[in-house]
Amino acid sequence: MNALWWQAPCQAPDQAAMQQARERQQQLTKPAGSLGQLEQLAIQLAGLQGTSRPSLERLAISIFAGDHGVVAEGVSAFPQAVTGQMLGNFVAGGAAISVLARQLGASLEVIDLGLAVPMGPLPGVRHLHLGPGTANFCQAPAMSPEQLQLALGAGRDSLLRAAEQGAQLFIGGEMGIGNTTAATALGCWLLDCPVAALVGSGTGLDQTALAHKTVVIERALARHGPALTDAQAALRYLGGFEIAALVGAYLAAAQRGIPALVDGFICSVAALLAVRLNPACRDWLLFAHCGAEPGHRHVLAALQAEPLLQLGLRLGEGSGAALAVPLLQLACRLHNEMATFAEAAVTGRAP
Amino acid sequence: MNALWWQAPCQAPDQAAMQQARERQQQLTKPAGSLGQLEQLAIQLAGLQGTSRPSLERLAISIFAGDHGVVAEGVSAFPQAVTGQMLGNFVAGGAAISVLARQLGASLEVIDLGLAVPMGPLPGVRHLHLGPGTANFCQAPAMSPEQLQLALGAGRDSLLRAAEQGAQLFIGGEMGIGNTTAATALGCWLLDCPVAALVGSGTGLDQTALAHKTVVIERALARHGPALTDAQAALRYLGGFEIAALVGAYLAAAQRGIPALVDGFICSVAALLAVRLNPACRDWLLFAHCGAEPGHRHVLAALQAEPLLQLGLRLGEGSGAALAVPLLQLACRLHNEMATFAEAAVTGRAP
Repeated sequence: MNALWWQAPCQAPDQAAMQQARERQQQLTKPAGSLGQLEQLAIQLAGLQGTSRPSLERLAISIFAGDHGVVAEGVSAFPQAVTGQMLGNFVAGGAAISVLARQLGASLEVIDLGLAVPMGPLPGVRHLHLGPGTANFCQAPAMSPEQLQLALGAGRDSLLRAAEQGAQLFIGGEMGIGNTTAATALGCWLLDCPVAALVGSGTGLDQTALAHKTVVIERALARHGPALTDAQAALRYLGGFEIAALVGAYLAAAQRGIPALVDGFICSVAALLAVRLNPACRDWLLFAHCGAEPGHRHVLAALQAEPLLQLGLRLGEGSGAALAVPLLQLACRLHNEMATFAEAAVTGRAP
Repeated sequence: MNALWWQAPCQAPDQAAMQQARERQQQLTKPAGSLGQLEQLAIQLAGLQGTSRPSLERLAISIFAGDHGVVAEGVSAFPQAVTGQMLGNFVAGGAAISVLARQLGASLEVIDLGLAVPMGPLPGVRHLHLGPGTANFCQAPAMSPEQLQLALGAGRDSLLRAAEQGAQLFIGGEMGIGNTTAATALGCWLLDCPVAALVGSGTGLDQTALAHKTVVIERALARHGPALTDAQAALRYLGGFEIAALVGAYLAAAQRGIPALVDGFICSVAALLAVRLNPACRDWLLFAHCGAEPGHRHVLAALQAEPLLQLGLRLGEGSGAALAVPLLQLACRLHNEMATFAEAAVTGRAP
């Protein structure tokens, strides 16, 4: 695998299919524009699928899990063993994303990139063992160059498996105690903004713990500042295995020509990293929601993203993306199945 | 039928079921509160259905259609014949709400309350013939007292038919060229605010036409001001057949104990009227979305409603409510099917 595979060209959306879809939207029996964002979604999906009649029936969800050395600094309300325990919950069907995947008829793949508390092989989980979690980024780069390559490649591999299954939409999710800390550090570097503007309570910190989390991130940014010369370096020094895997998956999605629906704050940071590494991938990213973590809306703004939902979600696991899937599916159904003014013999607006 | 049937008591939500649902939410394998609005929805639905495990599988949609005399003043971009033509489109399956109802497996009932352009009986449509549309409210009260009673009762009848079918959720939709004009007039009276604060372009007016629509509504409010002594009078003088039917349906839903999911601007005005007529009905109203019509968010604020979607919709027909149904269903699935911390052997947060 070429170390710079992610710089290879992305697919181009099909402009002719988009134009056909745009014209169809004008002919459907509704005031022009009255389905709001759903009209643009249908047109965008037409371009991404290369057909004037897009559909979203085959969905692939991959959950990337990894632990974070920075948890040693006391930045999370949950113990680190929960990362591994939740892998069991994902495959046993009891987690939020398990319920949603079942209901949507989506495939659900679970990838263990490296846990702090080792666990035996778990049926249904791909164990990659990149390390016992990342290093504590207050003391060292989070990942070695090799770990970064492997994590990016793991995301790409997931996307390619989804492509082989004929997936029409890819959803990446994440699990990793401490990963809002890593994502916030990355967000501050990407947006060049102070930690206090982005930091949030993650799974549920109180004000004292939040102030501590802020200081921890500030220390890491100060320590590694000179080394953070580009997005790749920032991802290696401040990121996590699961964040890098998401970056790899989004980049591969754009190269392979499969739309990716981006979940919450951590996934949106990964999406912004992917766009910095290869800007053309932006076309292939759809944004599901704006969540409760304060940094999320800033990252979405930098991506010029218009998320579909704003429900105060802060769970991760890809759950917010899964919740938005019915809207995408219904946007396609409306686009494909509504009658035109001519077909229904309905008079258009006065000239 | 008692002329004041709508003042009869509403059902009370089941507080014990809500408390059980609230406790269950705290035990599910996710950080407390991390599913945001969906957690409150599941708890609310538990109270409305009287069970700690709510579900939404049987849905009833009723579309109320009526014409508006005020269209003679030139307030709509579409000719009045479209109201009737769209009835045909609803039952033929080509309208947005037809596509959505099919996809959701919902029943779809279409009620013609009174059209300006008469049409022969249409299979699948209930023709009630309350009049050739309302009177032009710039010149006379929109409805007679008898028409108002019949329209309110028509809404109640729809709700009762839905109840007989075992509906777990009721959606009312509307169709009527000119009905944003009537709804805006009502909204201004309900909120005691100037027309310019609420008026919008409806199906697509330009700035000149919008200014004219504003003046028309101001004239009507000035003409009828002294007669608008309460919500019932306002509905009769300024409303429409389909708006009154929605009011009746929402009130009957609360009396019968069936949650109603409120659609767009016009439906939200009807909901606010229902709450003014019988405040206890508020508990049974769920709000699907905040649409593009500027008055919508003001009316929602007066209802202290937190809508689920904000997609720039402005179609009506119940379409925005139908689009929110999957979120309600998934909120129930998550609530019912997720594992608890104990079941999944996942460690809770640090004490």
